[in-house]
Amino acid sequence: MKIAIAQLNPTIGDLAGNAAQIIDAAQQAVAQGANLLLTPELSLCGYPPRDLLLDPSFVEAMANILQQLAVDLPPQIHVLVGTVEPNPSASLSGGKPLFNAMALLWEGRVRQMFHKRLLPTYDVFDEDRYFEPARVSYSLTIKLQEEKTKTLLTPYFIGVTICEDLWNEENFWGKRSYAENPLADLAQQGVDLIVNLSASPYSVGKHKLREEMLKHSASYYHIPMIYANQIGGNDDLIFDGSSFAVNRDGEVVSRAQAFQSDLIVVEFDKETRNLSSQFLVELPTTEEEEIWNALVLGVGDYARKCGFSKVIIGLSGGIDSALVSAIAAAALGQENVLGILMPSPYSSDHSVKDALALAENLGIKTHTIPIGELMQAYDRSLELLFAGTEFGIAEENLQSRIRGNLLMAIANKFGHLLLSTGNKSEMAVGYCTLYGDMNGGLAAIADVPKTRVYSLCRWLNQSGKEIIPDRILTKEPSAELKPDQVDRDSLPAYEILDDILQRLISEHQSPDEIVAAGHAPEIVDKVVKLVSRAEFKRKQAPPGLKITDRAFGTGWRMPIASRWIGKSSVEKRVEQNDNSN
Amino acid sequence: MKIAIAQLNPTIGDLAGNAAQIIDAAQQAVAQGANLLLTPELSLCGYPPRDLLLDPSFVEAMANILQQLAVDLPPQIHVLVGTVEPNPSASLSGGKPLFNAMALLWEGRVRQMFHKRLLPTYDVFDEDRYFEPARVSYSLTIKLQEEKTKTLLTPYFIGVTICEDLWNEENFWGKRSYAENPLADLAQQGVDLIVNLSASPYSVGKHKLREEMLKHSASYYHIPMIYANQIGGNDDLIFDGSSFAVNRDGEVVSRAQAFQSDLIVVEFDKETRNLSSQFLVELPTTEEEEIWNALVLGVGDYARKCGFSKVIIGLSGGIDSALVSAIAAAALGQENVLGILMPSPYSSDHSVKDALALAENLGIKTHTIPIGELMQAYDRSLELLFAGTEFGIAEENLQSRIRGNLLMAIANKFGHLLLSTGNKSEMAVGYCTLYGDMNGGLAAIADVPKTRVYSLCRWLNQSGKEIIPDRILTKEPSAELKPDQVDRDSLPAYEILDDILQRLISEHQSPDEIVAAGHAPEIVDKVVKLVSRAEFKRKQAPPGLKITDRAFGTGWRMPIASRWIGKSSVEKRVEQNDNSN
Repeated sequence: MKIAIAQLNPTIGDLAGNAAQIIDAAQQAVAQGANLLLTPELSLCGYPPRDLLLDPSFVEAMANILQQLAVDLPPQIHVLVGTVEPNPSASLSGGKPLFNAMALLWEGRVRQMFHKRLLPTYDVFDEDRYFEPARVSYSLTIKLQEEKTKTLLTPYFIGVTICEDLWNEENFWGKRSYAENPLADLAQQGVDLIVNLSASPYSVGKHKLREEMLKHSASYYHIPMIYANQIGGNDDLIFDGSSFAVNRDGEVVSRAQAFQSDLIVVEFDKETRNLSSQFLVELPTTEEEEIWNALVLGVGDYARKCGFSKVIIGLSGGIDSALVSAIAAAALGQENVLGILMPSPYSSDHSVKDALALAENLGIKTHTIPIGELMQAYDRSLELLFAGTEFGIAEENLQSRIRGNLLMAIANKFGHLLLSTGNKSEMAVGYCTLYGDMNGGLAAIADVPKTRVYSLCRWLNQSGKEIIPDRILTKEPSAELKPDQVDRDSLPAYEILDDILQRLISEHQSPDEIVAAGHAPEIVDKVVKLVSRAEFKRKQAPPGLKITDRAFGTGWRMPIASRWIGKSSVEKRVEQNDNSN
Repeated sequence: MKIAIAQLNPTIGDLAGNAAQIIDAAQQAVAQGANLLLTPELSLCGYPPRDLLLDPSFVEAMANILQQLAVDLPPQIHVLVGTVEPNPSASLSGGKPLFNAMALLWEGRVRQMFHKRLLPTYDVFDEDRYFEPARVSYSLTIKLQEEKTKTLLTPYFIGVTICEDLWNEENFWGKRSYAENPLADLAQQGVDLIVNLSASPYSVGKHKLREEMLKHSASYYHIPMIYANQIGGNDDLIFDGSSFAVNRDGEVVSRAQAFQSDLIVVEFDKETRNLSSQFLVELPTTEEEEIWNALVLGVGDYARKCGFSKVIIGLSGGIDSALVSAIAAAALGQENVLGILMPSPYSSDHSVKDALALAENLGIKTHTIPIGELMQAYDRSLELLFAGTEFGIAEENLQSRIRGNLLMAIANKFGHLLLSTGNKSEMAVGYCTLYGDMNGGLAAIADVPKTRVYSLCRWLNQSGKEIIPDRILTKEPSAELKPDQVDRDSLPAYEILDDILQRLISEHQSPDEIVAAGHAPEIVDKVVKLVSRAEFKRKQAPPGLKITDRAFGTGWRMPIASRWIGKSSVEKRVEQNDNSN
């Protein structure tokens, strides 16, 4: 028996387009002799459809197009299609109105429905908002004939799981996240094979974790497993694909491309009741390579799925806009990236030179608009009101907002997508200007800490020719919003800041714990307060591509008007210090 | 037995401040002879704490402060305090790590814990993200002595429910939302009284619905019920308070103020085992009065809880900024509102006059900054790049963004909060400029449809003296971003637009259903597309005060890069029409 994995890149809500992708994959799979085609979770509507699921006409349209898809698919192949199904007893039994489902399509009809049991409701996931969990796991049966004799072979029983259904293996995690374990149930039913249809978003190292988990589960239950994942960028989420298959001995026997659409076929051997080994695509070798590929995919797909072919970026001569430009050029082609230089009287000489050198390395067009005259025009407009005040944050922000306006004017005029260039460290502590450098339809590196921005740029340059000009990598980071300003006037060194932020944001450490790890109490206290106070800015940020296990996006839900800032013994100590000075 | 309801206004995360409010309320309750004090759901941290709950040090701090609160409260009164409690078997049984709990504090100690059973996970609610539901309902027991003889009275058994626990009465709703019904369980246990500790956000008419529901439940089960609700604004959510009590005959016998902190005492008669009647506070008589009070509370609390005492508002001479200014003056005092007029060459004569007349009526300060010079400066800066293009959206947006920059510069300079003035109709169809008129820390009327903006202003003027100048109410709505522009150049009449939006957004109607209700297919199709395409703007909008059952805020979770726009037979019809012309 041959099983094909269609690693598809759906557009959310594009039911007809996504159905066409499934038909295309099924035809390829048939051509390669496959008996079963796997598509990702919710492959018909794309994941995550979010509140489109609350629209009854959307659910109805999915049901109709699923019926049509059954007719349009090649009849000889079994196809698992991700869709939703109404919960008929919802209002009687008090459940949610839908199931997250996989439909088995074969010979022109919908043959069987499988419902997801474990519904992730944490981080970026809101599945309890929409779905009722199923209580039982089922398998599908495939009956094949011996090719020569036409006698019926022993049927294959294939257990069907959907994404999170696999992620509750107590023996692997050392704890349970849900009461039930679909894997254990299917193992008890004695299935030959377990397939998992997923839409699992990327974060650094996630693919290795998935393989480790399934290697463990397959060998623990002595059941081969096939993992089919979505690929593509959908708003802030990037799906890496990286589908794979593990034999009953816990060995990876097949692997699809990461960050690309793909179709691979694996063979289930009827004698050994195991998956056969195949050529293995290599995993990315460094985290930098992984992240780079993720960001290129995320930027390209966001632009394409929103209908943009060109992007513009404000080029400051700094490292953040350099990285974003390089990503954009890789995602959309150098001819589709326009860099705008907007020097002010506070800009250093090298800011323009470095930006132009970068643009030349990337082969992107640039345009320069000095903002001195606009700064003066604002100063004159505000003269009366600001009389007697000192140059400060208001004036610094104005420069950033003049640039933001110019960028949006150009984006609006020519129908380009503006990419904002802020990194995660800045977004965390609010070292960025709302309605200024935060402007954009997509924040390409909003989940990339500053230290990682450097390592990505260094990795880029390793490939042989210089892409990021050396001075951009070596000069001191500065917002250049007043004379001789550098980031470390306001912030701790990025190595320190990023370590504190990692502990605070991803590891949920308290200020006391972070101090215990060796950081200065004054600095920890300052960072904790800055992070809390910047919530109002993050609330209005564009979607930012998620590459870590905790990003400031749909998975970060903090109150703004709040008075909790990790108040702790650290802060008390600092207050005491302040008093003693 | 006397029971006090403390209708408190907590600040999210301000554990010490919220505990102090509870102590203060308990002292008042003791002074009025109460035996039991009810506080709202999660009264210790405020509702909703959101992802603060993912921070272990926050949960630990709550546990510590709860213990301290038990000691600090007057010992003779039983106090129910809203808090969270760790789920000790979470990692063994696979549950969520916390319970949404009420702690019974008495005589210096935490005596009993009650856990919420029905966890709302829809609209603005994400409780499945944090909490494990409890399986059983419990009651607390209060034993009192006869005052003269000191003999023990029959004990009182009081069933404890938390917010949503009440909202699953099949006989009232005609359907179930959850499998279990805590009310029915407590009725079966034979409790004397059921109390409900809530944090139920305001929407128009919600208070009447709550009273209807409890009148039904109390008379159905023949059990008196007391409903204690939080008040105050927390980011986008406004809690209206409006706590009340219903006797076993289903009559409302007591009612606390709407939109104000309050403390009321109700008496449970030991002979009749029923709640005694009392003086009733009147409900607001019109929806306009309700909404006005809600918005004044929401603006005032957001400013106060974020640490602002003054706000600024861009005054266009139009009705939206007029209403927001009136709300702000009522919330913060006329002396704390600064109106900025920013006329352009396209502004009508009356725009400045009307804005000044409004400011005079409200008694707020104004400052005028013409933007013509800045427009010219941008034109010059963009001259080369825009050569040969026509005046269009880019230039219109620039005017709005110049104003947005000026407002933010002033807000930053003087530490004021900028209120944005967009209404729900505009936010729905994207008739607003990102980084322009959308700028602000809070969008005061983002959930108020344009037709309701008018009715609120007319209602305001009914109170005797003119507040909103007549011409603002009667002139044709216009963005004034190009010569002779009026809103109806781009949009259907607001009566039509708002009805379509109400059906689309709140009632989840399909385009076909909206057409069947009598709207022109072309207009429905246009509106549906505009709503879908404006998602990227709403993603970056400031928090907007929620007053309807479906707002574009935390309860609206739509994909941006999506291709679903309610594609329907309507659209097909329109496409055909286009082809035939």
